This record gives sequence, structure tokens and C-alpha cells, in this order.
Amino acid sequence: MSLARIRIVLVRPQHPGNIGAVARAMKNMGLSSLVLVAPREFPAPEAVARAAGADDILASAQVAESVAQAVAPCTRVFATSARARKIPWPVLAPEQAAGALWSEAAAGHEVALLFGGERSGLANEDVDFAQGLVQIPVDPAFPSLNLAAAAQVLCYEIRRQALGPPPAVTDHVPTSQDELNRFFAHLETVLIGIGFLNAAHPRKLMRRLVRLFRRATPDQNEINILRGILTAIPVAGQPPANLDKISQE
Amino acid sequence: MSLARIRIVLVRPQHPGNIGAVARAMKNMGLSSLVLVAPREFPAPEAVARAAGADDILASAQVAESVAQAVAPCTRVFATSARARKIPWPVLAPEQAAGALWSEAAAGHEVALLFGGERSGLANEDVDFAQGLVQIPVDPAFPSLNLAAAAQVLCYEIRRQALGPPPAVTDHVPTSQDELNRFFAHLETVLIGIGFLNAAHPRKLMRRLVRLFRRATPDQNEINILRGILTAIPVAGQPPANLDKISQE
Repeated sequence: MSLARIRIVLVRPQHPGNIGAVARAMKNMGLSSLVLVAPREFPAPEAVARAAGADDILASAQVAESVAQAVAPCTRVFATSARARKIPWPVLAPEQAAGALWSEAAAGHEVALLFGGERSGLANEDVDFAQGLVQIPVDPAFPSLNLAAAAQVLCYEIRRQALGPPPAVTDHVPTSQDELNRFFAHLETVLIGIGFLNAAHPRKLMRRLVRLFRRATPDQNEINILRGILTAIPVAGQPPANLDKISQE
Repeated sequence: MSLARIRIVLVRPQHPGNIGAVARAMKNMGLSSLVLVAPREFPAPEAVARAAGADDILASAQVAESVAQAVAPCTRVFATSARARKIPWPVLAPEQAAGALWSEAAAGHEVALLFGGERSGLANEDVDFAQGLVQIPVDPAFPSLNLAAAAQVLCYEIRRQALGPPPAVTDHVPTSQDELNRFFAHLETVLIGIGFLNAAHPRKLMRRLVRLFRRATPDQNEINILRGILTAIPVAGQPPANLDKISQE
């Protein structure tokens, strides 16, 4: 599985609870490779508690002594960063970084995404291992993003890139134009029958109703319900047989 | 600000800590309108603690008695849902829902995104207020997403849609082809001068180096450094003046 080749590297994480929360975010999004560089406290019960079932991610986490060791086999490394650096570095949006990491992982290579510790983020020496910086587009007025929240956003972006564009909209199959037009004919007949629509002066009534129902894109079941309602409406001078005939047009 | 017209509605939230974490996620992403439907405990110190500075979001949060009241002025409502519903409902990916909410908010309308409580999510009666379901593409093997994590992903998507596509890559201005070609000429001269490149049998050496440096897209400062290095290399039989001349070609 290519997602397993994308390692999440936490550099000097301070709170074991955050390590657990990152493990949970990773597992929710199908990632599994966690590397911890010089964690202050790990393993820790608080990490397991916050992982909420992602214990396997914690159990298989690697502990490294340095960033160099953590990313040694990787062909591509990006560093998350909340602040600008003095040396201009390519700055990528999460979707750009996630796309690059995913396509390289899908091609069979190991890649890494670095997160700094809670206190001071990544040092410049850590960033030197990366080909680019990733910045989550936080509101500049309130930019402080929790480590787990930042990992959640990036892991979500990686999964989104891996899954590709979503289908237009699922679970809803609009009925055919043919069915729709038969419904409109039925509706018009009933509206004339009950005296709401004057065939001699129709104005824009039917066009408005047509526009409304086209916008709603009814499915076959909904059309059946609507036709059933029309059939149940008593129309003076027209026996129900007439409506049956219309519904079979 | 159009983001203020996108209300985040928490329906029957159980843990005040999660309310605070959602407020923080909202403020990080520039959202400000929080509505709580029948919260178990609010206001609460734990909410303020987890908000980590987003106190203003909590202070201005509205408490509603029902979903109907919470979304009353809204022209578009989506409901987040982890599970499929018996009645087929349009299911949208986060980016699709966020895009629709944002464009409607930008047009001046109030819109809402519903989140269910921690225990059982949204009831079918809650979902009936929505035009569609939003599903975060979690790994089916580990789908349980924390309320705050789900809100973080959706608020991020809304901000991403609001900001539009990111610029290609910032903070790096590659130098011109003209500058690059002068560097290649300089490099070739030096490589011949030190005897590494045989002008009579050049093989593919220069083409490989050209490809490498084109891929690196050096900026002007980096080109200046590289030219400085070339100039500093002692070349037998060629006075430095020669190199100066090349660098001014």
C-alpha cells in the first residue's frame, strides 16, 4: 500500500498525548508510518489513550535520534512550518505538498513529512533536510494550530490526493427527461382539470413549475410519488381512467 | 466577511472540551459563527481551556433549542455523516460541500454545516433539514473521527475554497534562461580548463550537468554563488581575466 511509504516524522514532540492524537489522525486517513525524533516521553500511557484505538501505529512507531536518521531512505521530504524562514524556501500549500508526496510514494519511493515540536517548531537545521516548506493557510489573526490538528489536515490532504477527485454526487440517480416530460404533461392536465391553470391564458405557470422540478432532479421513486399524488386528485368531469391513460403515454 | 455567514452547528454536543476545540479550529480557519443545539454543558471552563484563545467564538456562540431554529435563516444546509442513510441522500466530499457553502456565502446568503454529537451523530430528523450529506473520506478500517478533528477538516476545506487555488510555488524566483546558459558556458570552460572535460570527446557530460541544474531551477543568488566558485577554481594556462570575460558575455 503506497500510503505506508509516506512517513509522518514528529521532531522533538513534547506531549505524549499529541503523539497519540497524531497516530489517530494518521490511522483515520490510512497512513501507518510514524517516526519520532527524540521524543520527550515515549512510550507513554497518555499516547495510547489519545490514540483511541490506533495503538498499532504507536507500537510500530520508530524512534530516531536525528532528523537525518529519520528521513535517511526518503527521496522527498517536506517540512511543515508556520513561519517564514530567512533563506527563501519553496513554500507549498497542503494540497501541493500532499500531491507531490503521494505521487512519489505511488511510484514506489519512501517520502517524509516533518512536523516540529509544540514549543518551537522545526529548527533551521531540521528544515535543511527538506525540499520545501508546507504551510497550512491559517487565518493570520489566529495562526496557532495544535500539532494534532496540523497533522489531521495534512493526513486528510494526503488521503484526498490518493483517492483522486470525488465522483460528482453519489446515491442519487435522477430520472430520465422522458419520465420528467410525462410528469409535466400529467401535472398540466391536472392543473387544468382543477381550474388552477387556464389553458387559454397559461402565462408562465408551467414554465416556472418545470424549472422548479428540473432543479430538484427527482429520481424515479420521487416521480412515482408525484404521479401518484396527481392521480389521487379528483378532477371534475374526468374519470380516473383518463389519468391512467396519461400515465401510460 | 463572507466566512462569517457560514455557521458551524453542533447538535447535542456532549463534551464541552470538544466545543472549545471546534471553536479553535474555526478561528484558525477564519470562521466565527458557532451555533449549539441543546448542548449538555455550556458555558463550561473546559470549553474555554480547549479553545486556547478562541474565547470570542465561544462568547458569541448562539444556543438554539432545535436544529430548525439553528438553521432558520439559512439557504443551504449540509449535514456531516459517517454512515450511510436508508433514504438515499446526495453524498458530497468535503471539497464539494465546502465549495457550495462558500460560493453561496460569498453571494451574501447564510449557510450551515451540521455536526452530530459524539455519541450517536445526527438523527434522521436532523438530516431532514439538510440538502445533502458530507462524508470525510476516512479509512473504512478505522473510521471513528473525533468531533474536533472532523470540524478541523471541514473548516480547512472551507478556507481552502475561500482562498482559491494556491500560487504555483512562492518565495523562489528562478533565474532567466539567459543567465543559466552563461553559467553553463562558464562551467564548460572551467571543466575543460581543469582537464575534467575533453572537448574532443565530450560524451554526454555537459548535457547531464545541464539537465541537473535546469531541474534545480537556481535563482539569481545561487547562480552568483556557482559562478563565484567557478571563478575561484585555478585553471592552468588561463588567467582569471579570461573568466571575467566569459562572465560578461
